[in-house]
Amino acid sequence: MSDDRNIYLNMKTLKEAQEILLKEFPLSDVLSNEFLSVPDAVGRVLAEPVTASLSSPNYHLSAMDGIAVKAKNTFGAGETRPKELIIGKDAFYVNTGYVLPENTDSVIMIEYVNVLDEKRIEIEAPAFPWQHVRKVGEDIVATELLFPRNHVVTPYCIGALLSGGVLSVLVKKKPKVLVIPTGSELVDWRESSLKDLKPGQVLETNSFVLGKLIESSGGAYVRHEMLTDDQKKIQQAVEDGVNGDFNMVLTMGGSSAGSEDYTKSVISNLGKVLVHGVTIMPGKPILIGKIKDKPVFGIPGYPVSAIIAFEQFVRPLLYKMLGQPEIERQRIQVEPTKKIPSKLGVEEFIRVKLGAVGNKIVAIPLPRGAGCITSITEADGIIRVPNNVEGIKPQESATVELLHPLSLIKNTIVAVGSHDNTLDIIADQIKAGHSSLTLSSSHVGSMGGLMAIKKRVCHLAGSHLLDIDDGSYNISYIKKYLPNTKVKLINLVFRDQGLIVSPENPKAIKGIEDLDRNDITFINRQAGSGTRILLDYKLNQLGMEPEKISGYDNEEFTHMSVAVAVLSGSVDVGLGIFAAAKALNLDFIPVVTEQYDLIIPEEYFEWENIQVLLETISTKEFKDRVEALGGYSTEKTGEIIL
Amino acid sequence: MSDDRNIYLNMKTLKEAQEILLKEFPLSDVLSNEFLSVPDAVGRVLAEPVTASLSSPNYHLSAMDGIAVKAKNTFGAGETRPKELIIGKDAFYVNTGYVLPENTDSVIMIEYVNVLDEKRIEIEAPAFPWQHVRKVGEDIVATELLFPRNHVVTPYCIGALLSGGVLSVLVKKKPKVLVIPTGSELVDWRESSLKDLKPGQVLETNSFVLGKLIESSGGAYVRHEMLTDDQKKIQQAVEDGVNGDFNMVLTMGGSSAGSEDYTKSVISNLGKVLVHGVTIMPGKPILIGKIKDKPVFGIPGYPVSAIIAFEQFVRPLLYKMLGQPEIERQRIQVEPTKKIPSKLGVEEFIRVKLGAVGNKIVAIPLPRGAGCITSITEADGIIRVPNNVEGIKPQESATVELLHPLSLIKNTIVAVGSHDNTLDIIADQIKAGHSSLTLSSSHVGSMGGLMAIKKRVCHLAGSHLLDIDDGSYNISYIKKYLPNTKVKLINLVFRDQGLIVSPENPKAIKGIEDLDRNDITFINRQAGSGTRILLDYKLNQLGMEPEKISGYDNEEFTHMSVAVAVLSGSVDVGLGIFAAAKALNLDFIPVVTEQYDLIIPEEYFEWENIQVLLETISTKEFKDRVEALGGYSTEKTGEIIL
Repeated sequence: MSDDRNIYLNMKTLKEAQEILLKEFPLSDVLSNEFLSVPDAVGRVLAEPVTASLSSPNYHLSAMDGIAVKAKNTFGAGETRPKELIIGKDAFYVNTGYVLPENTDSVIMIEYVNVLDEKRIEIEAPAFPWQHVRKVGEDIVATELLFPRNHVVTPYCIGALLSGGVLSVLVKKKPKVLVIPTGSELVDWRESSLKDLKPGQVLETNSFVLGKLIESSGGAYVRHEMLTDDQKKIQQAVEDGVNGDFNMVLTMGGSSAGSEDYTKSVISNLGKVLVHGVTIMPGKPILIGKIKDKPVFGIPGYPVSAIIAFEQFVRPLLYKMLGQPEIERQRIQVEPTKKIPSKLGVEEFIRVKLGAVGNKIVAIPLPRGAGCITSITEADGIIRVPNNVEGIKPQESATVELLHPLSLIKNTIVAVGSHDNTLDIIADQIKAGHSSLTLSSSHVGSMGGLMAIKKRVCHLAGSHLLDIDDGSYNISYIKKYLPNTKVKLINLVFRDQGLIVSPENPKAIKGIEDLDRNDITFINRQAGSGTRILLDYKLNQLGMEPEKISGYDNEEFTHMSVAVAVLSGSVDVGLGIFAAAKALNLDFIPVVTEQYDLIIPEEYFEWENIQVLLETISTKEFKDRVEALGGYSTEKTGEIIL
Repeated sequence: MSDDRNIYLNMKTLKEAQEILLKEFPLSDVLSNEFLSVPDAVGRVLAEPVTASLSSPNYHLSAMDGIAVKAKNTFGAGETRPKELIIGKDAFYVNTGYVLPENTDSVIMIEYVNVLDEKRIEIEAPAFPWQHVRKVGEDIVATELLFPRNHVVTPYCIGALLSGGVLSVLVKKKPKVLVIPTGSELVDWRESSLKDLKPGQVLETNSFVLGKLIESSGGAYVRHEMLTDDQKKIQQAVEDGVNGDFNMVLTMGGSSAGSEDYTKSVISNLGKVLVHGVTIMPGKPILIGKIKDKPVFGIPGYPVSAIIAFEQFVRPLLYKMLGQPEIERQRIQVEPTKKIPSKLGVEEFIRVKLGAVGNKIVAIPLPRGAGCITSITEADGIIRVPNNVEGIKPQESATVELLHPLSLIKNTIVAVGSHDNTLDIIADQIKAGHSSLTLSSSHVGSMGGLMAIKKRVCHLAGSHLLDIDDGSYNISYIKKYLPNTKVKLINLVFRDQGLIVSPENPKAIKGIEDLDRNDITFINRQAGSGTRILLDYKLNQLGMEPEKISGYDNEEFTHMSVAVAVLSGSVDVGLGIFAAAKALNLDFIPVVTEQYDLIIPEEYFEWENIQVLLETISTKEFKDRVEALGGYSTEKTGEIIL
């Protein structure tokens, strides 16, 4: 996506582009209709108003078990002067749901009837007219409107429709969308083995993501076979789609350059480009065109761009075709945990994790790259930073659109701090046992975790901060940095930290002392992380100078990223945990066993969700899974240190 | 449903019953699993944690079109001392998405490159390491947890799973529910003609409603053929279901007496009754049993009882089987427009219509009968009145659980007042043109509408109040009852009011003057309604005494109900509009043409939704549809009277 090279001469704001779109396509009558039996119509949109052809109830029915009477025959009855009625003449036994016998208008409950003999009964109170009777049409009157046009049939509606004598309904056909994945670098996951992927080849995923989003928006999709970056072929596919019975065509660019330009030419050749480029991020390079009155979109190739382009443009059009209102996501005010910078002139869609900490909802920004699909699968919400705003300061209130129900967000344990793979195991085990409970981890290093506790934006922090004076962990840091916060310190694991190197250690690295060798490139962890402190401690002990280590200034934020850097060959060595090395089949040279603890403010310690977490780490299942990772000891797991 | 006769010896509260249910069925592992391809797994629940088997990106990729370089080769470059690089040696052309050539670690955008010739380029600024590079694992690192157990696969997830090299996932099978409709009065709508329905026969609808609710809760259902009230057959069906591969069995009682007792005996015979009767309304007679460790429910027969029993008991169990949290409906505070009485000791589920009027959300209670399916299809929300509360006073705040999004509720025009069939046409036409806009009408008569405007709980009121002094409509009432409220008065229609009688007028009624004949039974409208005032006016003119009219004290609330009373033969005549008579093929004796207006407080008159309504009634389409009903004139429709 050559965003910055391509010149979008007439780039539109989101609002302008949406207005053009909805103005150019007055689509309310574009869909044809079909009759469906009522139960099959659930989820579908009524194409015409529906009126009842039957009343419900269709006769006056008894609402009780008892005797049916004419109310005026009972007037005057009382405890002191009971009234006698003759069965079959002025009193009739009825059960609930029975049709009221002719010439009766009320029901006396059986428990208020004195049975004298087979022929005679006695009552001690009068009935009032229509007492315990479900009158004709009480629920539905024939000819009345049951549902207007554009009403969506719900399971509840089945009851009203069938009871009203409506057995089938005319509904709008689903809008049909042709999805054309393009890009020479793309590979169909159904037709190739992962092992055969060549460098630069990418599994095509967007057509399936958007296809399922189309379905969940009330549409249907057909996936065209993948096309290489061949303008002729793409043009043919678009033309066939427009000439076919599709209501809409999407071409989906690969992430390689050029796709976008092809699509623009294709639309220009066949019709008209309405919008090229919108000042949103991700999603900027979207193309909106019109060919033979049908909407054609050029969807950007990066996965998050594709999703946002879909949700901002394609979905509103599908809803419009179906005569449905856009469903607004619930919005709440949140407090970002850190500054969210944003460019002027661009509306940014910042994906965030959310959690309720103290009396506020905190928002932890996720990576912003349009290529990071996990930034949206992990998100609980989206903060939009408008065109005219340069960013959001920490502790400034921001509006978030929720992707998950607030009740789930309020049940999320927010962990911020150092990363450890055992947090994934906790997350999985908690989810298995407590479906409404989520552990959400953000990785900012041990010091970042301490600061998050200080700023009261998390429920717990994972930390492995070494005191270089006495070799203890975490305690002195807590005293120094959290003097006014009462916290508990719980051991999670002991773990091996060591040097991660390529398989069979090709540079024959023996330990920290080799890091300043000229032939060695190192990858560091970010300042403040426990691993970084450990490294500096060891360098100091050994009298080594950081500036002599090539790559000392290159920082990664997780153990896994360090391991990946080694795996890719871009560096020779990094300091990290055994688990990360093992996961990528790298070699590992143990340097030290360190203590990894959870810091939990006392105010949250008794919170039931934290208690669930503490119970979880005490289970044998948890400890077994941790030990199976290798490089861990769970001897003191769950012990309260402070 | 013989609620009051049957003695529920151990009736449980809702909370007690739910606790028993969830305690008796530790169902988290009851479902078996199946592998599905990732796109097919959308909406399904992961049965195991899923880890990535591929990193994404899988190589370092260029994020821009430009040249790939080793950053340190560019250090020192500046505007005054540009640096020359050799293509193919220390600079390589790359497009977005290309794999980074070996020995490079950054990309310089093409627009910052001076091309000297085919072999040489020049740069005027240094690159920093990893600039414009998507690093291996930037999005996903192989081996890391993508999603924990019990995660529901969304369309977004497809992207993360496929990108992480996960092509199929193990998901839980859908819980399978056997639904057995029972009741001798029931008729299968698919197998019989509506015309052949015998008195007391009822179309069976609950199995389809609950079946679709089961599907929307993540389950699958099989509908057993309908059974008559035959205990042996019901028992056999339940036993077969429990012995089969079903995870749950529901018997659905008809509304006739006895079904419930059969189900109780069936469960006792085959297993154990856990709960019989819960202090909720609707839904009280629910039965919960356990047969061979499987849950078996006796679902009450009234449609709203069945739905509430499902939502309070069956759905939580389905969610538990699937390891899913119960999704709490959004709750907001509302103000009921009238008193909601409620019995002590019973938790009532009051269905309400909602709308935003002024700065509050008002709640208009719907009919409370468990047999009224339209009370739930028309509801925007449910107010629960707890066991220990006797009711809710008007203007007392109440909590409502929303059935529709708040944004739609805020876009609802709240009409309260006299009923007229043309309101249905407005509702339908508004919905056709403005999908997010709803007209919600509540029928309380003309005076009720005036009072609703006075209490500021509606946006408009339909009214046809005759001034018996001068024959004018509405104006004098507005002056008298709304002295402090500025309103606009808009004519909607003129309509014929007259006597509704059986086809061919068997009692040869000529006019109002016949109403006190001995052989005639009348049905009246409620006090305060325009029709009632008209009647009293005419009676007074004719010097007739109301007490001599048989049925004068029997009141109905709508024109349609009056017509139904005539159609059913329970009365001979009622006063109402032509449209109601015509709809039910009754005869009609015109008495007067009356004016039906809309009263709109000035503060809402300029509101865009009211303007949409006023535009709608001015269209030819609207007037044509109204005239087609018969008995209406639209000559002055839309005219501002006041």
